Amino acid sequence: MKRILAFVGDLYEDLELWYPKIRLEEAGHEVVVAGLEAHRIYTGKKGIRCRADVAVGEVDASAFNALLVPGGYMPDRLRREPTVLGIVRAMDAARRPIAFICHGGWILISADILRGRRATSTISIRDDMVNAGCRWSDAPLVVDGHLISSRNPGDLHLFARALVEQLGDP
Amino acid sequence: MKRILAFVGDLYEDLELWYPKIRLEEAGHEVVVAGLEAHRIYTGKKGIRCRADVAVGEVDASAFNALLVPGGYMPDRLRREPTVLGIVRAMDAARRPIAFICHGGWILISADILRGRRATSTISIRDDMVNAGCRWSDAPLVVDGHLISSRNPGDLHLFARALVEQLGDP
Repeated sequence: MKRILAFVGDLYEDLELWYPKIRLEEAGHEVVVAGLEAHRIYTGKKGIRCRADVAVGEVDASAFNALLVPGGYMPDRLRREPTVLGIVRAMDAARRPIAFICHGGWILISADILRGRRATSTISIRDDMVNAGCRWSDAPLVVDGHLISSRNPGDLHLFARALVEQLGDP
Repeated sequence: MKRILAFVGDLYEDLELWYPKIRLEEAGHEVVVAGLEAHRIYTGKKGIRCRADVAVGEVDASAFNALLVPGGYMPDRLRREPTVLGIVRAMDAARRPIAFICHGGWILISADILRGRRATSTISIRDDMVNAGCRWSDAPLVVDGHLISSRNPGDLHLFARALVEQLGDP
């Protein structure tokens, strides 16, 4: 069983958290949800509630095999947290899968790990991605080594499958 | 009487539109609100509704003396519109005041007019502003020529006064 860390916060894009979470669990993995406060319930853009298992400040990144970064407006808040950016940089340095979708790219921009890397995002943050040095393309799925990215909920089937494939057997 | 164009859209930051709008009207000016659709009602983050007077696609930028760009998550949507970016570039080329606050900077990033210019924004988009070439600082008010910027609703008194001053007599 692999352990995947997922970020949550108010106004997260509901399906971009829940579809990959359930898909990973279906594949036999464990998903741990981290928010600004442990055990607090956060509400998605469409109203789906999600309780954080742990606080981002208490996460030991080395205990996780992959990172899931959903979109919505949650990343606008979490990108301000040094502990969140530290988790992203640690996962990247360890070459563990980082799957980010839609507005999730904002967090990778603030972690400053996109220079020269290929990725995609929702069209609305394309300029921010490009200005951060990303080689951006408008594709449903972009895989550049351990960086897995997609544009929006319509790409979730490709996005989650790519993450499951990189994780391999539970 | 000067005419000021203001952008609106769902999830605009309520006070960042309404305080400058009423303050400009108090000073004797006319504020015209532009959204994606004329006459549609948009709802702010806190629930204050605002009807768009005109559609962004029908705006003649040369008919306005200044531009007001509120924050909230509205700019995430409007920055995708070529007509919106065209208005911003036209106002900048004509050296007319552009007052933007909080997340409003996203629209100026996508209009690509921030390279080498001094400005501020909400802390959460600082990295996007810097990557777009902006000389960013964490100040309640930054005025660089006709570019007027502030960080959040707590700066509105300074922000609106600076715009009123640049407009001069009605």
